[in-house]
Amino acid sequence: MRATVMYGAGDVRVETVPDARLIEPTDALVRVTRAGVCGSDLWPYKSMKPTGTGRRMGHEFIGIVEAVGDDVRTISEGELVVSPFLWSDGTCVFCRRGLHSSCLHGGRYGFGDVDGGQGEAVRVPQADGTLVVLPIGADETLMPSLLTLTDVMCTGHHAAVSAQVAPGKTVAVVGDGAVGLCGVIAAKRLGASQIIVLGRHAERIALATEFGATDIVSERGEAAVERVHELTGGFGVDAVLECVGLEQAVVTAFDIAQPGGTVGRVGVPEDASSPVGIAFWKNVAMGGGPAPARAYIEELLPDVLDGTIEPGRVFDQSTNLDGVPDGYRAMNERETIKVLIEFK
Amino acid sequence: MRATVMYGAGDVRVETVPDARLIEPTDALVRVTRAGVCGSDLWPYKSMKPTGTGRRMGHEFIGIVEAVGDDVRTISEGELVVSPFLWSDGTCVFCRRGLHSSCLHGGRYGFGDVDGGQGEAVRVPQADGTLVVLPIGADETLMPSLLTLTDVMCTGHHAAVSAQVAPGKTVAVVGDGAVGLCGVIAAKRLGASQIIVLGRHAERIALATEFGATDIVSERGEAAVERVHELTGGFGVDAVLECVGLEQAVVTAFDIAQPGGTVGRVGVPEDASSPVGIAFWKNVAMGGGPAPARAYIEELLPDVLDGTIEPGRVFDQSTNLDGVPDGYRAMNERETIKVLIEFK
Repeated sequence: MRATVMYGAGDVRVETVPDARLIEPTDALVRVTRAGVCGSDLWPYKSMKPTGTGRRMGHEFIGIVEAVGDDVRTISEGELVVSPFLWSDGTCVFCRRGLHSSCLHGGRYGFGDVDGGQGEAVRVPQADGTLVVLPIGADETLMPSLLTLTDVMCTGHHAAVSAQVAPGKTVAVVGDGAVGLCGVIAAKRLGASQIIVLGRHAERIALATEFGATDIVSERGEAAVERVHELTGGFGVDAVLECVGLEQAVVTAFDIAQPGGTVGRVGVPEDASSPVGIAFWKNVAMGGGPAPARAYIEELLPDVLDGTIEPGRVFDQSTNLDGVPDGYRAMNERETIKVLIEFK
Repeated sequence: MRATVMYGAGDVRVETVPDARLIEPTDALVRVTRAGVCGSDLWPYKSMKPTGTGRRMGHEFIGIVEAVGDDVRTISEGELVVSPFLWSDGTCVFCRRGLHSSCLHGGRYGFGDVDGGQGEAVRVPQADGTLVVLPIGADETLMPSLLTLTDVMCTGHHAAVSAQVAPGKTVAVVGDGAVGLCGVIAAKRLGASQIIVLGRHAERIALATEFGATDIVSERGEAAVERVHELTGGFGVDAVLECVGLEQAVVTAFDIAQPGGTVGRVGVPEDASSPVGIAFWKNVAMGGGPAPARAYIEELLPDVLDGTIEPGRVFDQSTNLDGVPDGYRAMNERETIKVLIEFK
């Protein structure tokens, strides 16, 4: 069969490769009818070191099931199916929670003996857990939108869900690529009242507006941050969809979020070993900052008054005002956990 | 009156300063009865450049109201009050949401003409919005715990709330200082089933255990990460309370969180200008990562099938398999948003 193989930056070839075939009893063999090129395919296109063996490409595809392994129960020959960009067993602890991207027995297309999606056919592992049957005949007009469900539409939706978009919220989308544009669709679908897109390409902005963007910010850097504040009463937005991944985009996302807001980021981080990068791959969220102690005092006070909690035990040293300088020294040298000052 | 003044790293003095007094009609004058030294007071103690004028210290205090301004409605002379570590008006948009730490008209103790808490008296701005009256007489035994409500107990609670601790969840606490120890109390109070503390100081660990810690990890670095995984079935914990703020602690926090988990961080970030630092001061949360597309396909498919959303419009170019190499080029040069590959 023929498939797309990348041999290095800028070097993409369409070649004859071994025919896709069933290997495991949980596999399905899918004849591809539509596939997509993903923004993430461009990273190796920009930076991949030359290799003699090449790398099979593609992870967005729709196709017809040509054969299934003996253990496949929910997928049958002849069905039209769509695959998410990762395969997953559907039964592990993370799949059961809806976090199929952390499947304990899942993986990526185009690696090992799993075909890429930009070819004539694909061996799909864990077919029952991975594929979704499309209840539709040959309605060609829907195919592009169905194909976005493999990745970009779900990724834009994930940005909106992760940013906690909800009815009436104000939203900003950083990035006007396919994912950012799908993020606009997702934000509108989830009820956002204002959707600000940061972008400057005329056609993309036109499409964003048709998808539901209410404001366009074409400035860059500090000027863009200022403009978003102007558009939101000076505070920034409730929810930011970060659909780029470069550090500068993450900084912009945090800059335009209002206090207590949320950034949903689906742009793959530039630096995978940074804290922000480590958290990304596991879908680990981060919250916090200075405690709103005034609010919490009322919540915690009853538990202190009735002795349910005894946080005062962290004070393991008391002094008077004159003893404060030595208290600083003792805490700094970790002689004491915390110093209490008693007056008079 | 006498108060604590810092003149530079390691140089803390107790000196006579001008008496605290009412300035604004919304002020209260509080005679301090108890105050605390905070872990954050140690940052200037370690690093402050020498200054001739000095800086008034302290933001954790309890006291008796000695006088109130004409506009104060809810606080009266003679009442015992506790102050959160920041003052706030209680009426702005962020206070009304419970995010008093982002009050539009609030501020910090010890700056400008506002006294620090480690002195005999304090002018408290925005007294109605800031102070909480303690419904208690002279029960001296409760004073240390009530004093923790100014900061460390609320901060530990904020770490737990931000990490989404809930009944039955597994929790790890990074940091065995007063905030980390209060984080243990908070995690237990919110129903955590397992509370792992990363720490190695015998007395602190003993206190953590009395507060509800179920496991202690005294290893460091990679070994600590491994140990937490061993204690949690190989996956890491649901919720991490990051109570240190050094970059290494943040990395450890992300390393020991399981996929889909949450880090609640209250340790003030080492680098305020890093993305993680910018987000901190505003209490901006961050979520996201690779989309669990398999879960979302089922959610979004009906909207695609009935035409409610048309994400397929992001494909603005189609090609056949032979045209894929040029499709990569066109996307890379931003000639096109996204390329669709049609087979046959």
